[in-house]
Amino acid sequence: MQVIRQRLDGEDGTGSDTVLEAAAERPLAGSNEIENPTSNVARFGPEAPLWLECQQNLSPYQVAYNTYGELDSKRSNAILICHALTGDQHVASDHPVTGKPGWWTTMVGPGKPIDTNRFFVICANILGGCMGSTGPASINPKTGKPYALDFPVITIGDMVDAQARLVDHLGIDTLFSVIGGSMGGMQVLEWAARYKDRVFTAVPLATAAWHSAQNIAFHEVGRQAVMADPEWAGGKYTEEGRTPRRGLSVARMAAHITYLSEEALQRKFGRNLQGRAARTFSFDADFQVESYLRHQGSTFVDRFDPNSYLYITRAMDYFDMAAEHGGVLANAFRGTKTRFCIVSFTSDWLYPTRESKEIVQALNAVAANVSFVEIESDKGHDAFLLEEPELFATMRGFLGSAAAKRGISPAKEA
Amino acid sequence: MQVIRQRLDGEDGTGSDTVLEAAAERPLAGSNEIENPTSNVARFGPEAPLWLECQQNLSPYQVAYNTYGELDSKRSNAILICHALTGDQHVASDHPVTGKPGWWTTMVGPGKPIDTNRFFVICANILGGCMGSTGPASINPKTGKPYALDFPVITIGDMVDAQARLVDHLGIDTLFSVIGGSMGGMQVLEWAARYKDRVFTAVPLATAAWHSAQNIAFHEVGRQAVMADPEWAGGKYTEEGRTPRRGLSVARMAAHITYLSEEALQRKFGRNLQGRAARTFSFDADFQVESYLRHQGSTFVDRFDPNSYLYITRAMDYFDMAAEHGGVLANAFRGTKTRFCIVSFTSDWLYPTRESKEIVQALNAVAANVSFVEIESDKGHDAFLLEEPELFATMRGFLGSAAAKRGISPAKEA
Repeated sequence: MQVIRQRLDGEDGTGSDTVLEAAAERPLAGSNEIENPTSNVARFGPEAPLWLECQQNLSPYQVAYNTYGELDSKRSNAILICHALTGDQHVASDHPVTGKPGWWTTMVGPGKPIDTNRFFVICANILGGCMGSTGPASINPKTGKPYALDFPVITIGDMVDAQARLVDHLGIDTLFSVIGGSMGGMQVLEWAARYKDRVFTAVPLATAAWHSAQNIAFHEVGRQAVMADPEWAGGKYTEEGRTPRRGLSVARMAAHITYLSEEALQRKFGRNLQGRAARTFSFDADFQVESYLRHQGSTFVDRFDPNSYLYITRAMDYFDMAAEHGGVLANAFRGTKTRFCIVSFTSDWLYPTRESKEIVQALNAVAANVSFVEIESDKGHDAFLLEEPELFATMRGFLGSAAAKRGISPAKEA
Repeated sequence: MQVIRQRLDGEDGTGSDTVLEAAAERPLAGSNEIENPTSNVARFGPEAPLWLECQQNLSPYQVAYNTYGELDSKRSNAILICHALTGDQHVASDHPVTGKPGWWTTMVGPGKPIDTNRFFVICANILGGCMGSTGPASINPKTGKPYALDFPVITIGDMVDAQARLVDHLGIDTLFSVIGGSMGGMQVLEWAARYKDRVFTAVPLATAAWHSAQNIAFHEVGRQAVMADPEWAGGKYTEEGRTPRRGLSVARMAAHITYLSEEALQRKFGRNLQGRAARTFSFDADFQVESYLRHQGSTFVDRFDPNSYLYITRAMDYFDMAAEHGGVLANAFRGTKTRFCIVSFTSDWLYPTRESKEIVQALNAVAANVSFVEIESDKGHDAFLLEEPELFATMRGFLGSAAAKRGISPAKEA
């Protein structure tokens, strides 16, 4: 087995030192994480159904979440972190399936920019996910089998509504901040629009207020890859004891390319060969970049549910805040008192800076309090998850000043 | 069935008015085009094996080709057109499988920029292809069955060597021009390097002298999609009477995104819904861009061999002219007398302008005669195949002036 060690980063942030070509064989399907996850769970019974944008009720449902730090006596220091497409609630603690560190440990923790010595951090698995919040892998109470494609198609707004129920459940009225990158940023925007009075600050990173044709196109490729796999079995793979590993793996490979910039791929891999001196004139993974992508694909399958992948990408494609507000994005934020900090990265071609600027312009149009930072980085979309000193400085500065404004006590000594 | 009519363009240039979602069911596998194509064929027997870069002989082999116009008495007016990844010899005549017009009818024909009233145009299916030149779908004389993965892994240089045999066969010593875009441009560069005295002018369009990590990555996704399809059957699908439609379709969808710019996708499709007034909250092709991609995938399968797709993408990934010449690209062209015309397009993110500039710099370093034009276009990589007046003007000007220099007679009246 050819092995190289290097920093592997994913849009989900499960980056860590990893041995290439060495995929764990611990399939998620049937994993206990779906119904009884390694985290807290808020369960909402028949008395509290969730009304979805598709005009259906979801009931019962549950939201799996982790918390870090302590809620202060005024319940004023809570930060909700919203995760991206393939992330989960394990933002700053080890992942129970992969054993790897949480996906944003550079950002969240004691003394980190999102300082858990000062703030009470909540991170919930999204509705439609597969790490304990209700999703297509969950048991449909009507049939006793996984929902599969009988799960309703959900939206970013539905995810946010479910999170709001969790925040209610935790007895928190106003969140000090809602923070997230990529699809997490979409949730941040939706929070600021739907729950104007409950969001003191909002930090959407590397995101957009709508999904572009190119982004929809890449997602459609991923979905078709999953659905092309005969093991997907019309979505009933769990019931039938099958796993569409190959389809989901291809989907992940295609998506992963979009998380990195062309420059980052060139710098990390270039045309370097993978543990060999010359081309093999075969279809082996001659190039490091091939080996890297294959690894990304195969390890992803061990921790993610294929149907969840379909539902979550669909939710992102459906996201279009302007369309939800009469075609005018600014309408979404009219009357807002939230302080916004918008961050984009120069080499992010999935959610380019111009799309962040559209958000800034909409906020300016309603005279909102908004900071905007475009960070110079060649790391592509994934930059928001990586060691980016300017991002850390921006977060510390923005959160620190807003926390002082809100009267949140300074960080406790550890 | 939802139907829209619009101009559909592909990297191969089979763009034409097409009904979405209406795929023909005329599979290529077993098609007569592989052994006895609807075009001319030059057959090279055991006495003339082709020595390949992988250090194997290929024998026998054949090269399928079309010609347009007439060779002049001095045999001085021949132009070889090299096609891209999924193109073929039907550059200016109808495609025998799809019935659609040739892939470059805007550029090649009587009175067109590559004027068949003046020039003798040759276009050959590449080695490794599936439209009549020997490739993995051809019958392996040793077994009487298709080669499949027993076909040797070929390179751009091998393709060019096979074309040179064809040019010999046609009794032509020096080509007036070798012209091609994308992978066709790679062949042009290789022609200029391998056969310095046989190329009067060379026109590499929208191409590069090496394949980047990102380009390799996209190709690897495509190959994995094909190989993930159980119908691929280890490459022996024809022998087993199967067709890996779904895998190849996904590969084509992923690749197709890279042929268009983000702007072009947004302009053509945006977030427009496909024949419906609202989101369906399902996994149907709600968006036009989804429908378009699915169509691109499904029609491609009807005209292309999955193993050919593997071999040709591999040849492109292996392409690195500097590496072939001691790490210095300029060495490839040392001593050249060929006149070069290099063209790039501003929105081509597959082969961006900077990669064309590397070629220009290498040519400048050996004091070659080189023109370079970067054309402003928002159409992406596919621009070279589309209605681009500046490209047409560039080609007319460059070819006209070089033809006068070479003493080629003006165009005959049709």
